[in-house]
Amino acid sequence: MALRTLSAKNAAALDQELMSAGAFSIDQLMELAGLSVSQAVFKLQPLSKGKRILVACGPGNNGGDGLVAARHLFHYGYQPTIYYPKQSKNDLYQRLTTQLRDLRIPFTSDFETALHQTDHIVDAIFGFSFSGEVREPFPKVIQALRDTKLPVLAVDAPSSWNIESGPPDSGPGKGFMPDALISLTAPKPLVKRFKGRHFIGGRFLSPEMAEKYGLDLPKYEGLDQVAEVPAGEGEKL
Amino acid sequence: MALRTLSAKNAAALDQELMSAGAFSIDQLMELAGLSVSQAVFKLQPLSKGKRILVACGPGNNGGDGLVAARHLFHYGYQPTIYYPKQSKNDLYQRLTTQLRDLRIPFTSDFETALHQTDHIVDAIFGFSFSGEVREPFPKVIQALRDTKLPVLAVDAPSSWNIESGPPDSGPGKGFMPDALISLTAPKPLVKRFKGRHFIGGRFLSPEMAEKYGLDLPKYEGLDQVAEVPAGEGEKL
Repeated sequence: MALRTLSAKNAAALDQELMSAGAFSIDQLMELAGLSVSQAVFKLQPLSKGKRILVACGPGNNGGDGLVAARHLFHYGYQPTIYYPKQSKNDLYQRLTTQLRDLRIPFTSDFETALHQTDHIVDAIFGFSFSGEVREPFPKVIQALRDTKLPVLAVDAPSSWNIESGPPDSGPGKGFMPDALISLTAPKPLVKRFKGRHFIGGRFLSPEMAEKYGLDLPKYEGLDQVAEVPAGEGEKL
Repeated sequence: MALRTLSAKNAAALDQELMSAGAFSIDQLMELAGLSVSQAVFKLQPLSKGKRILVACGPGNNGGDGLVAARHLFHYGYQPTIYYPKQSKNDLYQRLTTQLRDLRIPFTSDFETALHQTDHIVDAIFGFSFSGEVREPFPKVIQALRDTKLPVLAVDAPSSWNIESGPPDSGPGKGFMPDALISLTAPKPLVKRFKGRHFIGGRFLSPEMAEKYGLDLPKYEGLDQVAEVPAGEGEKL
């Protein structure tokens, strides 16, 4: 049976509640989110299959999750490269960036070239708060993600997809179907249109919060911060 | 070959540097520290051997690590109970406490009774900043930890041990030798006197910081946030 989903509006409300009544800090939640993303990469792309991971980060929290994931990937033995063209003045993102620079992880502004020098890609450009238009410089990045033969893991949402209705009918993301998706905290309605391997991260959600928001807690194994759930059965675009 | 150790003074300097130049927040570091403690418990005490974990928390950062560990243990399927008699007004510790209360994890003020209703104990009372005297109500708690037949995992230091010289010659901790120790970031000099299973947590330290402080990065496996290193060979007290 498919897991219940969380609308964009409820995802924002849940995040707010985690940080107010739930008493989590954004640092803590982002650390756990990025950790779960890094674990999904590890499961999708064992070190023996190629260590080079290109992490494409957007300007908001989705990009922050990507920055945290890249740090953990380095410590697992991967060679991450970061594409982060719209770096925010936000203190947290700046600190996460410093943590990566201290590991001598390269940042690139040339996505096309980086794409030819990687084994796997993490799409951490836009998350559940995305709506409307894909702004520069991301249209051509999303087109490249759509067209590449390399495996792509999308964080929370394939970038440019509508959180409720899924794949866009036009624009750079038309036809973009990443190989895998990690839903953070809970799947969003777009998963109904997603076809590929599907993971959930969020092994911190209380049973009461899950109940309140009408969510299913997936079955995590052992120490995993990520659970694989039945693959999405949406159409191939 | 034994891992190189970090003096109490250098441990404090390293922590400060991680949070200043290193740009880590205390929330982030404590989340990672507590996560590594929870993973050491999982390795020492598989769920099948008994799920009840008593986490004894002191008033400072060591206690905070215990609070984070307890949350993760709950999500792995354990039944933690918290003994936390000196709750600080510190915002972070209060938030970590709220996170546990939201999971309906019980807090107890009766350590003796709790000790008879658990399978495993985490000693998160004092860490690397401990020196001098054990203050109330901890003397009898440390005596009980010394005398119990149940397995005890100490976080960073067996509580009441001197960080440099190890086991005290007098006082409640005289003769206290926990079964296992997890050293956070790096072992402290006391490990030379410790006898038992030994883990390291701190899979976030950059190679450059390790070099600067003269530390060895242990070999972590897979996604582990904790590495087991050769058992301490100190004398049995």
